[in-house]
Amino acid sequence: MSIVEDVLNKVVELIEPSEDERKKLNETASLLLSLCERRFSAIHGYVSTSIEGSAAKDTWLRSKPEIDIFIHFQPIVSREVLEKIVVELGSEVIRDAGGNSRLRYAEHPYVEGFINNITVNIVGCYEVSDGNWISAVDRTPHHTRYVNSRLTPSLRRDVRLLKSFLTQTEIYGAEIRVGGFSGYLAELLILHFGGFLELLKSASRWKPPVVIDPERRVTKREALLIFAKSPLIVIDPVDKNRNVASAVTLTKLSEFILASKFFLERPSVDFFLGNAMLESMPINSLAENRNLFAIIFKIDEYIAPDVLWGELRRSAEGIKKKLSVAGFTVYNYGINESRGEVILIFELDKLCLPSVYLHRGPPVWMDDAAKFVKKHLLSSDTIAGPWIDGDRLYVLKKRKDISVDVLLRNWLAKGEVSISRQLYKLFSSSKIVVGWREVIRLLGTGEHSSFLARFLASRPLYMMGKTEF
Amino acid sequence: MSIVEDVLNKVVELIEPSEDERKKLNETASLLLSLCERRFSAIHGYVSTSIEGSAAKDTWLRSKPEIDIFIHFQPIVSREVLEKIVVELGSEVIRDAGGNSRLRYAEHPYVEGFINNITVNIVGCYEVSDGNWISAVDRTPHHTRYVNSRLTPSLRRDVRLLKSFLTQTEIYGAEIRVGGFSGYLAELLILHFGGFLELLKSASRWKPPVVIDPERRVTKREALLIFAKSPLIVIDPVDKNRNVASAVTLTKLSEFILASKFFLERPSVDFFLGNAMLESMPINSLAENRNLFAIIFKIDEYIAPDVLWGELRRSAEGIKKKLSVAGFTVYNYGINESRGEVILIFELDKLCLPSVYLHRGPPVWMDDAAKFVKKHLLSSDTIAGPWIDGDRLYVLKKRKDISVDVLLRNWLAKGEVSISRQLYKLFSSSKIVVGWREVIRLLGTGEHSSFLARFLASRPLYMMGKTEF
Repeated sequence: MSIVEDVLNKVVELIEPSEDERKKLNETASLLLSLCERRFSAIHGYVSTSIEGSAAKDTWLRSKPEIDIFIHFQPIVSREVLEKIVVELGSEVIRDAGGNSRLRYAEHPYVEGFINNITVNIVGCYEVSDGNWISAVDRTPHHTRYVNSRLTPSLRRDVRLLKSFLTQTEIYGAEIRVGGFSGYLAELLILHFGGFLELLKSASRWKPPVVIDPERRVTKREALLIFAKSPLIVIDPVDKNRNVASAVTLTKLSEFILASKFFLERPSVDFFLGNAMLESMPINSLAENRNLFAIIFKIDEYIAPDVLWGELRRSAEGIKKKLSVAGFTVYNYGINESRGEVILIFELDKLCLPSVYLHRGPPVWMDDAAKFVKKHLLSSDTIAGPWIDGDRLYVLKKRKDISVDVLLRNWLAKGEVSISRQLYKLFSSSKIVVGWREVIRLLGTGEHSSFLARFLASRPLYMMGKTEF
Repeated sequence: MSIVEDVLNKVVELIEPSEDERKKLNETASLLLSLCERRFSAIHGYVSTSIEGSAAKDTWLRSKPEIDIFIHFQPIVSREVLEKIVVELGSEVIRDAGGNSRLRYAEHPYVEGFINNITVNIVGCYEVSDGNWISAVDRTPHHTRYVNSRLTPSLRRDVRLLKSFLTQTEIYGAEIRVGGFSGYLAELLILHFGGFLELLKSASRWKPPVVIDPERRVTKREALLIFAKSPLIVIDPVDKNRNVASAVTLTKLSEFILASKFFLERPSVDFFLGNAMLESMPINSLAENRNLFAIIFKIDEYIAPDVLWGELRRSAEGIKKKLSVAGFTVYNYGINESRGEVILIFELDKLCLPSVYLHRGPPVWMDDAAKFVKKHLLSSDTIAGPWIDGDRLYVLKKRKDISVDVLLRNWLAKGEVSISRQLYKLFSSSKIVVGWREVIRLLGTGEHSSFLARFLASRPLYMMGKTEF
């Protein structure tokens, strides 16, 4: 047996659910199915209840048991009513099954519950035929049918391997926070390439944009035209107008390409499973002498995660841009959220701007030239000049504020930095921590410490703790 | 009388030579003329001796009495012989007249002497008709005739005003060190515009490139085509293929434009005469906290000033460019030479580069990607990464050398900075002084102190010590 197969077999043993675990999941699913049918059957427009997702396809990971229950309605039911009913009765079902429920939001609200350590989602959808989608989740039952009619035991094994690989390389999840691969996308890729290794062999040679069309329903040209901004385009077999990989960012796709290359070169269980290195990372020595600053605030009301992460990303990009224009170089930044506390950490080339800056004036032949001279000649913040170089005037000016936190507070106060409107108040009243010592003191232990360690290392888990590569 | 006329009259009183001074100059000129005729008359090919320059045109400044003696030869005399004879016999003439002589070089060697505090230049030229120029100075007698046939007493007064104005604003002199206006150019401008104020009124509205053609011998289009790189084009009345202002740099022309604007707005003798402020400039407080470094070396052999200054400028630009590429911002630099000692002073945004830098790698889909990761992952100077942003790899690297002097020495040693070949050795073995305290300690007194003060202020003398403008 090859080294690769050896590694994969080891991994499969650890990620494949046991008979007991399968039994427990299936029993819970059956229970929920009957509870739902009982609760919803009297509702006008109700059609049926189905199991979807990894439980229905037998592609769930031992570490992530999850049941998606779909309540199907006729299109005559309005969205408002559908949502209201699913939330109300769904919560009762979870309670009936002995679990705790909470409300969540994706495109529309759904109920999340925890029963016997299994995550349960109760979602409402419309029973429609191909192409007549009303809500975003109406395709899901069609996806389940498509995948189940094609999966073999060996391909199921490979879907689990891929999900495990994507999880460990932090590429798993279509939510905005991740920008990675959904479970359905993972299944389609395994089906299309015929296996885990076959997919990785192909991916290791990908150059974005990548187009995959399992049912050969569009030309590559068309796909690139319709999904122009997507680095990865996987045409949905049940809807040729949809890109299954629309959430995948160029960064995540690139991380997948690189991970594929390295796994094939040096196969190892490190690409699939936990990393003890994290705990022992010498966070102090990692941070030493680096120009770090962090923005910290608490979120005081519920914001749907996809909305929050979209706004956080946009805001971080806005801050990065403003810092660059002001004369800083932003090497890297990271965002973390934990129990409603958000931190943005930036690494810069310096934490203070030079106290003197060169100010370029107009050419001497412009009418403004005299005005420029008069303005700067006697101004107390002029260090030197005006002088002329070429046909232009220059002065050296003293900077009043030089420290990154003071500058950032000023910009926020004046609305000079592009921050999402919804988060502006939180940013404006945030705590700003400057310097690696302060950052470590405040964030080196507790909630954000492992994120901070990861940020300071800024490398994939599978590269950590290597002495050769 | 207007304020302007009042100022000009005051200046004229101070710069116009007295009767006694005129008499002394004329007597010295006559003496030299007869001594030259005696010495040179026996030489084969000798034609005559003439007085040229400001003495011949009566446009010299009281502070700068100067006599140019031109020895005219027939074209049958070779340049080597002409040069040799002029140097030999010219030196004897100076000695005969009771002065000290030294050899100087422009396009060809000439003899400079000092007699009764008057600077005397003895120069050899060919007696040729218009257009048949052999050496660069053959046009000079033609220039003198052209100017003298047109100057009036009032225009002579204005030539003196202009020369004085150009001197005080540091725009006078066609040598490379200055890159400014020659005496002949000053005279032509006064003739063309009809007076000092008329010239300034025009200049205050100039936008380079500026074309002036006193005898209207070429079109503006032609002039701009032939002298494409000249910001100021003044067609020589005695040779339409020559730009009298070819030495004038864009910077100097712009300084003239700006000075014209400001003089017309607030006429003052400060635009013509000395400045006491210089001595009292608080050099320490001017330099405080500024990021200065200086390169200092002694020139160990004679280099003609135009050659030296050309090379110094090119070298300074080479250093500026290299510093910029390396990550420094060069705000300004200055060059000074005094008694064979050269200093180049630079003002930067910082004296050290950040100890960490962002290194951008290849896109992940390139074959080099794996090589890049392997190279940096285990390297001891990798601070963080590799990580991926977009489709590219990045790492944070530690910089070994960060101080500007260490970096500069390394670049010089490796030939990585564009320095003139002739000066490479001098630069390589130069003293490099870093930091404003060290610069002040070494250069704040002595030879270079007033240059340093001017560099730190970096503004025209006429702007100094103003409390309003």
